[in-house]
Amino acid sequence: MKKYIYTFGEGMSEGNAEMRDLLGGKGANLAEMSRIGLPVPPGFTVTTECCVDYFDNRMSFPPSLKEQTLAALIKVEKSTGMAYGDKQNPLLLSCRSGARQSMPGMMDTVLNLGLCSSTIPGLIAKTRNERFVYDAYRRLITMYADVVMEKAAGIETQEEKGIRVELELLLSAYKSRHGYTEDTELTVEDLKYLCEQYKQKVHSELGEPFPDDAMVQLWGGINAVFKSWNGKRAVSYRRIEGLPDDWGTATNVQAMVFGNMGNTSGTGVAFTRNPATGENVFYGEWLMDAQGEDVVAGGRTPNPINESSKSEHNVDKESLEEAMPEIYKALDQMQAKLEKHFRDMQDIEFTVQEGKLYILQTRVGKRTGTAAVTMAMDMLAEKLIDEKTAVLRVKPEQLEELLHPILDPAAKETATLLAEGLPAGPGGAVGQMVFSASAAVEWAQRGKSVILVREETNPEDVEGMRAAEGILTACGGMTSHAALVARGWGKCCIVGAEKLHIDAMARKMTIGKRVLKEGAWVSLDGTRGNVYNGHLPTVSPSENEQFEIFMQRVDKHRKLGVRTNAETADDARTARAFGAEGIGLFRTEHMFYGKGCDEPLFLLRRMILSQTRNERQQILNKLFRFVKSDVKSTLVIMDDLPVTIRLLDPPLHEFVPHDLVKQKELAVSLGVTVREIKKRINQLKESNPMMGHRGVRLGITYPEITEMQIRAILEAAAELTKQRKRCRPEIMIPVSSDPNELKFQRQIYDRVCEEIRTKFRIKAIDCLFGTMIEIPRACLLADRMAKYADFISFGTNDLTQLGFGFSRDDMGGFIDKYLKLHILPHDPFQVLDQDGIGALIRIGVEKGRQANPSLKIGICGEHGGDPASIRFFAEAGMNYVSCSPYRIPIARLAAAQAALNS
Amino acid sequence: MKKYIYTFGEGMSEGNAEMRDLLGGKGANLAEMSRIGLPVPPGFTVTTECCVDYFDNRMSFPPSLKEQTLAALIKVEKSTGMAYGDKQNPLLLSCRSGARQSMPGMMDTVLNLGLCSSTIPGLIAKTRNERFVYDAYRRLITMYADVVMEKAAGIETQEEKGIRVELELLLSAYKSRHGYTEDTELTVEDLKYLCEQYKQKVHSELGEPFPDDAMVQLWGGINAVFKSWNGKRAVSYRRIEGLPDDWGTATNVQAMVFGNMGNTSGTGVAFTRNPATGENVFYGEWLMDAQGEDVVAGGRTPNPINESSKSEHNVDKESLEEAMPEIYKALDQMQAKLEKHFRDMQDIEFTVQEGKLYILQTRVGKRTGTAAVTMAMDMLAEKLIDEKTAVLRVKPEQLEELLHPILDPAAKETATLLAEGLPAGPGGAVGQMVFSASAAVEWAQRGKSVILVREETNPEDVEGMRAAEGILTACGGMTSHAALVARGWGKCCIVGAEKLHIDAMARKMTIGKRVLKEGAWVSLDGTRGNVYNGHLPTVSPSENEQFEIFMQRVDKHRKLGVRTNAETADDARTARAFGAEGIGLFRTEHMFYGKGCDEPLFLLRRMILSQTRNERQQILNKLFRFVKSDVKSTLVIMDDLPVTIRLLDPPLHEFVPHDLVKQKELAVSLGVTVREIKKRINQLKESNPMMGHRGVRLGITYPEITEMQIRAILEAAAELTKQRKRCRPEIMIPVSSDPNELKFQRQIYDRVCEEIRTKFRIKAIDCLFGTMIEIPRACLLADRMAKYADFISFGTNDLTQLGFGFSRDDMGGFIDKYLKLHILPHDPFQVLDQDGIGALIRIGVEKGRQANPSLKIGICGEHGGDPASIRFFAEAGMNYVSCSPYRIPIARLAAAQAALNS
Repeated sequence: MKKYIYTFGEGMSEGNAEMRDLLGGKGANLAEMSRIGLPVPPGFTVTTECCVDYFDNRMSFPPSLKEQTLAALIKVEKSTGMAYGDKQNPLLLSCRSGARQSMPGMMDTVLNLGLCSSTIPGLIAKTRNERFVYDAYRRLITMYADVVMEKAAGIETQEEKGIRVELELLLSAYKSRHGYTEDTELTVEDLKYLCEQYKQKVHSELGEPFPDDAMVQLWGGINAVFKSWNGKRAVSYRRIEGLPDDWGTATNVQAMVFGNMGNTSGTGVAFTRNPATGENVFYGEWLMDAQGEDVVAGGRTPNPINESSKSEHNVDKESLEEAMPEIYKALDQMQAKLEKHFRDMQDIEFTVQEGKLYILQTRVGKRTGTAAVTMAMDMLAEKLIDEKTAVLRVKPEQLEELLHPILDPAAKETATLLAEGLPAGPGGAVGQMVFSASAAVEWAQRGKSVILVREETNPEDVEGMRAAEGILTACGGMTSHAALVARGWGKCCIVGAEKLHIDAMARKMTIGKRVLKEGAWVSLDGTRGNVYNGHLPTVSPSENEQFEIFMQRVDKHRKLGVRTNAETADDARTARAFGAEGIGLFRTEHMFYGKGCDEPLFLLRRMILSQTRNERQQILNKLFRFVKSDVKSTLVIMDDLPVTIRLLDPPLHEFVPHDLVKQKELAVSLGVTVREIKKRINQLKESNPMMGHRGVRLGITYPEITEMQIRAILEAAAELTKQRKRCRPEIMIPVSSDPNELKFQRQIYDRVCEEIRTKFRIKAIDCLFGTMIEIPRACLLADRMAKYADFISFGTNDLTQLGFGFSRDDMGGFIDKYLKLHILPHDPFQVLDQDGIGALIRIGVEKGRQANPSLKIGICGEHGGDPASIRFFAEAGMNYVSCSPYRIPIARLAAAQAALNS
Repeated sequence: MKKYIYTFGEGMSEGNAEMRDLLGGKGANLAEMSRIGLPVPPGFTVTTECCVDYFDNRMSFPPSLKEQTLAALIKVEKSTGMAYGDKQNPLLLSCRSGARQSMPGMMDTVLNLGLCSSTIPGLIAKTRNERFVYDAYRRLITMYADVVMEKAAGIETQEEKGIRVELELLLSAYKSRHGYTEDTELTVEDLKYLCEQYKQKVHSELGEPFPDDAMVQLWGGINAVFKSWNGKRAVSYRRIEGLPDDWGTATNVQAMVFGNMGNTSGTGVAFTRNPATGENVFYGEWLMDAQGEDVVAGGRTPNPINESSKSEHNVDKESLEEAMPEIYKALDQMQAKLEKHFRDMQDIEFTVQEGKLYILQTRVGKRTGTAAVTMAMDMLAEKLIDEKTAVLRVKPEQLEELLHPILDPAAKETATLLAEGLPAGPGGAVGQMVFSASAAVEWAQRGKSVILVREETNPEDVEGMRAAEGILTACGGMTSHAALVARGWGKCCIVGAEKLHIDAMARKMTIGKRVLKEGAWVSLDGTRGNVYNGHLPTVSPSENEQFEIFMQRVDKHRKLGVRTNAETADDARTARAFGAEGIGLFRTEHMFYGKGCDEPLFLLRRMILSQTRNERQQILNKLFRFVKSDVKSTLVIMDDLPVTIRLLDPPLHEFVPHDLVKQKELAVSLGVTVREIKKRINQLKESNPMMGHRGVRLGITYPEITEMQIRAILEAAAELTKQRKRCRPEIMIPVSSDPNELKFQRQIYDRVCEEIRTKFRIKAIDCLFGTMIEIPRACLLADRMAKYADFISFGTNDLTQLGFGFSRDDMGGFIDKYLKLHILPHDPFQVLDQDGIGALIRIGVEKGRQANPSLKIGICGEHGGDPASIRFFAEAGMNYVSCSPYRIPIARLAAAQAALNS
């Protein structure tokens, strides 16, 4: 017989803190707290294993559960001296979920179980508080009807039509009929009457009566908690957090204690350190004569527990320290004991029932990014934890808060939410709306803060995007043009806000019935994807002096290199400041956009539309100096760090102009008619450009394009070498699918190398030649590719596109459904798909190293900045990851944690 | 010291027929013939190994070669009683290439080596034939200048400007100055003068004198033959035939014999059986007083060697049997001996020098497809070969000749070649040009034969394509729409004939300066890709009674199943006649085109453009009966053979109408404006539709579409089962990339199965559920996919597209260059890429079988009809291949040969 039940409480804890897989975090900690002598109301935990068996067995309880439950219940009754369902001395129970990892608010709870017509009189006699008893009864009916009878029974309702809302309407109608404004004005008789009304409503709405039997209530509660593991909210939370569906939740059944039994009672939540700043002070809130839900619900503003917890909002309110000094002292000792015991900041729930303190829960406290860093460094200094633990204490994603300004959280609460989109670029941004890139540039020049609002962006918008505080688009996903560019700059950006109807011509946008014109203020929360109306205040990223020191500790444990994807000298500078150890992806094509100088793009367009090799060669000769100077300036900034320069990658059609004016200009310069230009542009169109004539395919059909670029890079390097400056270019061939492509391009490289060595009279150029592996076939042929490559770098964006057959631009039509139906656990463009794409990468790494053990291997897709993916890349044996500048600290931390966890 | 030289000739053969890898086919057979007592002029073979070493050593001969050559030369001199370079009794030599496998005409030959100023007088004295000697000298100068001094020296010229042409111009100018019409009119003095003129011309054109030294000539000859292995023609031949570049060629140096020494001399070519029909009769041609090149060059029409070789063209000419009965008798005995010895039809070159017969070469003779089948079956009956050998004797591709009419080969020789394209559909077709599908239908109804000429075709052209004799397009590759459809029907088709400029509006096409209007006659050779002007005669596919019997023998050895890709009842019937063992791919979407009934397509379009589930469901209910009846009719034809029905695959945008009339119709039927229809059509557009919202992704977002199709198929099957008819549908989900997609679709399948069993009160429906594996990720997850699949079928077309990242529609811009530069050995859409795509397939097969040992595995891409690919599929362990109906006999033979060779 499996042991499904573990009791806890003074002298009877069967579990301990190590057993969180079986008992859930809450259950394990309740057991542990009893063990170390803290006052925990007794109870028992129904294991996660029981929950799993319950689901495996078509949602019915294992046969032995009943017997085990009754045995545990007797222990609890003995410990409390009360009896569940007893007429004289009735015990009340709570029933709470508790999974392996905290899923706050995602699963259900029922309190006050055990109240029914047979136990109510006894409880009244015992407490001599009829009003308290009927208020508890009212709360039980509400919770039970909502959680057990409606949700757990699978009755689907819209939230605003659920039974809970119906009951609350009854209450408020009753109050307004009697001219009451507060719940406290309700008399015993009012409550009695309302309880009857509630029960009638429940019966008529849900088709069955509220159960008037304590045991029925208990089983209903356990059943509802189990079921809530697969409730909509819980499932979607797990999806977001990447938690597995097969863990199951434990259920904690515990003796009720009441903070709402008058002025010697109360309840509160406390943190062993300040969760917002990380400061090492005891911090918390409490309410006198209240139950836990009152603190959380926000109907009453809670009091501070002590001086350190006072702020401008609650400075006048009485602290627990002041109101109940003895209790506070005991609590303070307990919190210190708890933190020392668990060696981490604890989030503690406590209740005082008629002068007696109970600890209801302890768990590792959530904290802001800056607090996480501060606590980790403080605890390390206090020798509470070792360095390894300190490095593991900060979640990589938390660092984002330390890098960007954010919208003031308080202001957000009262602001009008206009629309939701995808959180494509982090932080907050506030500005006046403009609807074109040129307007953005113009307004910004006049000193205005602007938000650039577009249906979607394209490379011609880059200058405007740079000028804007934030970017907002109606279309596109997390890897759309806007998202990619914004993330690269660490700029606030929201994409795919589908509710927006943008009319760029009329310079306005419509959301539902609301019309917003050019110049209207909006505020973006790019970390959440929320668009607010008006001008919200922002909060600067908290200056955290320990950040730098923390990152130094991080780097001590890191094995994986971290480079950056950078297109400009600015990017390169930012990235170095964030600790980049080189550039892993410098896309040459970006030099053709938005530098305030149209000539390179114009030349490129002429080159693309020329039709003879001769014509093309002449224009390439002119382009040469732009490419050289662009590369050179970046090489100078990066000094002795490697710079991987990818040769021209996109299909040529991406560069040609679509407006008549520019087409005319080109026609004149090439000496042909506009019709001819249009014809040539048309010829470049492709059915599936992602899989068309691009990357190395251009370098094969037009070897002179490859040659010009290689020559420009090597000459830049040669000139720097001559000036005794250091530089380490690495030339990367994109989109290769066959070793012969590399062989062919390498021949050009070797030849040009030789020519430049002769021309500059230098012995060697410190340059590597390699390729991007972004085509599935290239992974499978990596051994043969490696014969012609000094390094390979996985381009996981395109590898994901081709490996899945998902066009990033077109998957909007189905990806939401895929995520909703759990067909895929994540958007594979955000979190690397380890099963499929990861398998291809492993094959590539293995084969590549097999043929060339000194092969340098990196990755330069979007996944290079994603912590879960970085862990995979570290395990796969890569040398480095490359990500956008603002993701570098995150990548460094993720890489260190990967090394520590390996 | 490596042995580089092997002598042959009476009593001195060091090699034998087994040694073809080392001696080449020609050398090995010359040695073998001497061994079995045939009169072969003596000589020696320089090995292929020597050629490989020569290329490895920067094209210089191995040091020991000279010594070995001189030793062999002495043996030849002893055997002939002459001496090379001798003044009195000079020996002349020939120098010919001979690779492992015959590469006819691809490499070079030099004859009459050893003629120089010191040997000419002796030869004249010996032969008493001064004219003969100077004619031989003239031939030597021409060949040597061309092959050794120009080609082998790497002097690049256009063919019409080479030294050979220059010398021929000299000759013809001389002849016209003297009023000669035939070479035979040239006197000794003329020839002497011309030889001097030739030598001067060679010196002035090529910058060095013609060598007047026998040994120099010999080394020049050997060198030139070796070099010709890497000549342009040879390299491109090897690419086409798939032969490796590292074999090298042998060089055969042999004593010259002369058929041009008067009326007791002659030369000829003979086959041990008729190479055109396969008939078991000795067959050949000869010329009196001539050299071998005269027979080949075609200046004189050769005589038949015997009665069986007479035809209407040469019936009046004297046969060898008549002119030299003794010689003929000897030759006839020799040919019989040769065929018996080599156990295959031999192609023999012979020369008679002054009444003495020599055999110069024997090799396995080329033959037509019909001859190949006849010979194989005859030789099997004669017990010359066993059944396994008989099956291996016919190349799979040769069967194509037995299945299609072809253009008369004689007529092609004199016809005007208008353009060349890709041979997309086999056989020949003759008709009048039309430029639209509707015109094709109309003209055909009026009883005309038409060729449909289009820029490229699309699904709306299908009816016209069906009506046409042949299809010709200016764009598109071997896997374009036109090519796919035509091959499916076994219809003659040429695609990508880039020289054509088609103006469909003006109903004309331009090729260079030639303009052809609607109604003009053209003739297509779809097997070669040639477009001829005018109305050429065609030849029906030869009726070969032994074909059926041969195929029965083939099937005895075959392990791999062969199914067909079929869309219509007609296809299914054709395929069964060709021996299909089921349908491996029935594309549901094809039922929406060209059945003379617009309703299904109209309904489909309405369904696509409807926007509520309700609207969609109503239309699906109407579509249901069309799908059901379409499927049912095919199931009936296929009886108890399996029919794999693929659910809707293409992106929906492919189906929507682009013309205003149809758009208006739809708008009316859906009760919306045309503007709204246009907007909805626009919303369906995708950047990369190949990787967009299609296949199972439609089935996930619109499960009702999957459900309708599954219900239609299962109801069709249930109705047939009720009628006690047999049927075996297999439902195939396209484009799946994740096991959860299959799980989701399988749930629909299981539910509908259950419903239909209940509705029809039947115990079981004999149906399988499976998926197409055409996404790289699906190969890597095949084990998990196999949990939800009874079968998988590799879709190698899309797998190749995604594995390479090559869009079939867009690779026109680079694939030619890739093939020309040998970056890829083949177009991977025609011949499966075993290295990359094959590796994915192997992973998929292995994983799939691992998880589900009884998993049925097939392949249904274009590669299912390609013999080399079929060999791979057999080795990979598949159960069946599926190909278009007309490829079935080819696939059956290739599969049998794969089994025999494994």
